[in-house]
Amino acid sequence: MRFVIIGGDAAGMSAASRAKRNQPELEVTVLEQTGDVSYSACGMPYNIADPDRDINDLVVRQARVFREKQEIDLRIGHRVTSIDRTTKVVRGETRNGEAFEVPYEALLFATGASPVLPDFPGVELPGVMTLKSLEQGRRIKDFIRSRGVRKAVIIGMGYIALEMVEALHDRNIQVDMVKPRPVFLPWMNTEMATEIRNEIENHGVNLFLGEEIKGVEKTNHGLRVVCADSALEGEMVLVAVGIKPNSELAEEAGLDLGPSSAIAVDKALRTSDRDIYAAGDCADAFHVVTGQKAWIPLALRANRAGWGVADNVIGKGIELPGIVGTAVFKVFDMQVARTGLNVVQAEKAGFDPVEIVIKSGSRAHAHPNGSMIWVQLVGDKKSGRLLGAQLVGKEGAAHRVNAPAVALHAKMTVEAFSQSDLAYAPPFGPTWDPMLVAANQLLKKM
Amino acid sequence: MRFVIIGGDAAGMSAASRAKRNQPELEVTVLEQTGDVSYSACGMPYNIADPDRDINDLVVRQARVFREKQEIDLRIGHRVTSIDRTTKVVRGETRNGEAFEVPYEALLFATGASPVLPDFPGVELPGVMTLKSLEQGRRIKDFIRSRGVRKAVIIGMGYIALEMVEALHDRNIQVDMVKPRPVFLPWMNTEMATEIRNEIENHGVNLFLGEEIKGVEKTNHGLRVVCADSALEGEMVLVAVGIKPNSELAEEAGLDLGPSSAIAVDKALRTSDRDIYAAGDCADAFHVVTGQKAWIPLALRANRAGWGVADNVIGKGIELPGIVGTAVFKVFDMQVARTGLNVVQAEKAGFDPVEIVIKSGSRAHAHPNGSMIWVQLVGDKKSGRLLGAQLVGKEGAAHRVNAPAVALHAKMTVEAFSQSDLAYAPPFGPTWDPMLVAANQLLKKM
Repeated sequence: MRFVIIGGDAAGMSAASRAKRNQPELEVTVLEQTGDVSYSACGMPYNIADPDRDINDLVVRQARVFREKQEIDLRIGHRVTSIDRTTKVVRGETRNGEAFEVPYEALLFATGASPVLPDFPGVELPGVMTLKSLEQGRRIKDFIRSRGVRKAVIIGMGYIALEMVEALHDRNIQVDMVKPRPVFLPWMNTEMATEIRNEIENHGVNLFLGEEIKGVEKTNHGLRVVCADSALEGEMVLVAVGIKPNSELAEEAGLDLGPSSAIAVDKALRTSDRDIYAAGDCADAFHVVTGQKAWIPLALRANRAGWGVADNVIGKGIELPGIVGTAVFKVFDMQVARTGLNVVQAEKAGFDPVEIVIKSGSRAHAHPNGSMIWVQLVGDKKSGRLLGAQLVGKEGAAHRVNAPAVALHAKMTVEAFSQSDLAYAPPFGPTWDPMLVAANQLLKKM
Repeated sequence: MRFVIIGGDAAGMSAASRAKRNQPELEVTVLEQTGDVSYSACGMPYNIADPDRDINDLVVRQARVFREKQEIDLRIGHRVTSIDRTTKVVRGETRNGEAFEVPYEALLFATGASPVLPDFPGVELPGVMTLKSLEQGRRIKDFIRSRGVRKAVIIGMGYIALEMVEALHDRNIQVDMVKPRPVFLPWMNTEMATEIRNEIENHGVNLFLGEEIKGVEKTNHGLRVVCADSALEGEMVLVAVGIKPNSELAEEAGLDLGPSSAIAVDKALRTSDRDIYAAGDCADAFHVVTGQKAWIPLALRANRAGWGVADNVIGKGIELPGIVGTAVFKVFDMQVARTGLNVVQAEKAGFDPVEIVIKSGSRAHAHPNGSMIWVQLVGDKKSGRLLGAQLVGKEGAAHRVNAPAVALHAKMTVEAFSQSDLAYAPPFGPTWDPMLVAANQLLKKM
């Protein structure tokens, strides 16, 4: 039996490794179009922040190890161009222009996602960067060093943009950030988003919101981002306006697509063709809170789905319950975390949401060196269920999101969640954990 | 209607405050035998650690505020000596030796707990201290200052003892710790307990385990703890061998007692007399995991139970689902957290437990400045349920315990918990959170 995997990052390589562990006699072929496999993409901003670290440190396991120790037929520089589902063959071309074809019995799309490139002129200029693959990270890091970048412009203000502003600031690069839409972190409660915005501006970063971007042009010493009313200059421009699933190949092969044009999969990670799976950033998932499909490309799901596919290829009949959309990031000293739905998402999903935001000390009354933590909770008036949580704070925000995340999986009511026996000691929080303060307050509005 | 509360700390004052908020015309009388009300007892070790902080900073709200702003009839220095349940009257004596009596319609025991005093000779000597009430904390702090304590002995190695060893170390006091039982943190997995022990010994603290203690005696310049095979000297001896519920008065009044002789209460916080409630460290609780009664005296439960009583006094019919035994403490740089049951407790409760311990980085692969984190999980082979978790680590251990705590409330299986969508970003953990690594490993053994 031959299991063919298109794509050699998180989902692809975790599927390949687990498949061989599950059944060592399985023939596993991985076709990766770039030269890199199995790296921590999420670690790139932190690596770029430190000129003394090699970007290749982010490689979790070398291609050689997969080949020699795990006997995985790993082929890099192999780009798949078409799939013949009738004869069960994938075809493609190597970096050297040689055609190849590989027959499969089970096939996995682990093709990931790519940065969205806006359609204004100048995005192809040297110095205009995106960040998703290790190759792109390498290019940014090389460019900063070789050009001695002192000033940069980031287009976009999402996770990647916010992690990169800190990374560039750590490199002593002055950064301007710009985006066409007027609202900073539109998915976040306004009061909390303002705290994050303040944290960024307090580090000397200029934020330009609601600026229509006309294009990027070359100047004598670098680049200029031309907006409707202004122009921002820098030696480097990072375009971080979002990512899109790499689902074209699957679409051409006639597979069904789901939300955001991600490859549609069932709970067993199967596409509309039962011999073909999809996992990772190219695939959608069930959202446990809404019961609907969602495309929320994150690393844990990619790894977990890779494992699920490896189990199902050998007939284990695994079903993944789904995601709740838990995410966390850091920007300067601020931790930002979310899980589940915000009010707008909850309304869209047919709930009758009500929201609360509370502010609390991160440590007990009279315990020194604490800071503030903000917690937002969303509940459903009709069912009483907890629907989502957001946190912002300088300490204790990141890990605190996991308690409501588990509560979402368990479909807990706000009332049941408010009765949770959470940990208390003065260095780690007040007697009533901020999460419980929020739950108690939310209960009153429900 | 008159609501009388015996005891003015966490449970008592939170009940009093909420009762007045619930129903301002309610007559609420609090009888507190000491001179202190409403203070953060858990904050005492951290306050003692800092000579520049006033121990009275731990008072959350002043007696005056309760009286004037909240119109609570708060009487300090009022010790209750008996309860007549037939005529519904409490009787007692003030600090000045005056007898008093107060009639009640609803009565709350919020009498707290007291340090256990071993029966060896010398425990009454000046310089032999215990720590539970603010008065005791004040005495320790005064003694350290007035006597210029440079060397101390702590008898016991539980939470309070471990928080106090750090506090005394911060005051540049050399500490020896001694206990009669041979096992350090017997409730904890051995490998993890060893990590904590190493942390303490690395700070120059000597630990003596399995030492039978004969007594404490006076020496020329201080005190000597005489053991079977050795003697430990210091100017101060802290006895921290556990606490016991203050339930004598309730027992004399004929109320039922539960585990550890705590006052037995139902989910509505009622004792065996339906006009009498008990809350806080003097009362027991339902353990959600075992479904049995347990006595786990902690601050959150005290506050929550106080609120519950205040609601039920005015007929709200509240029932508290119970506790899962979540606790956290810090000793030097080590965070220690637990929730639910360990293997021994699980066996006692009739489960068929299996345990796993994993060690993981606290940050992502290749992210700098991380440390190690240990996670122990216990599951039940018969039902598949998650039964408990323990964590040790220098970062990210404390708040991580809340996710399994919520899972225990939801009676999740290990399998369902292992599918939780927990947060990931490189500064905060690996892609597979240590908690998930542990859950995945535990699954294999179930």
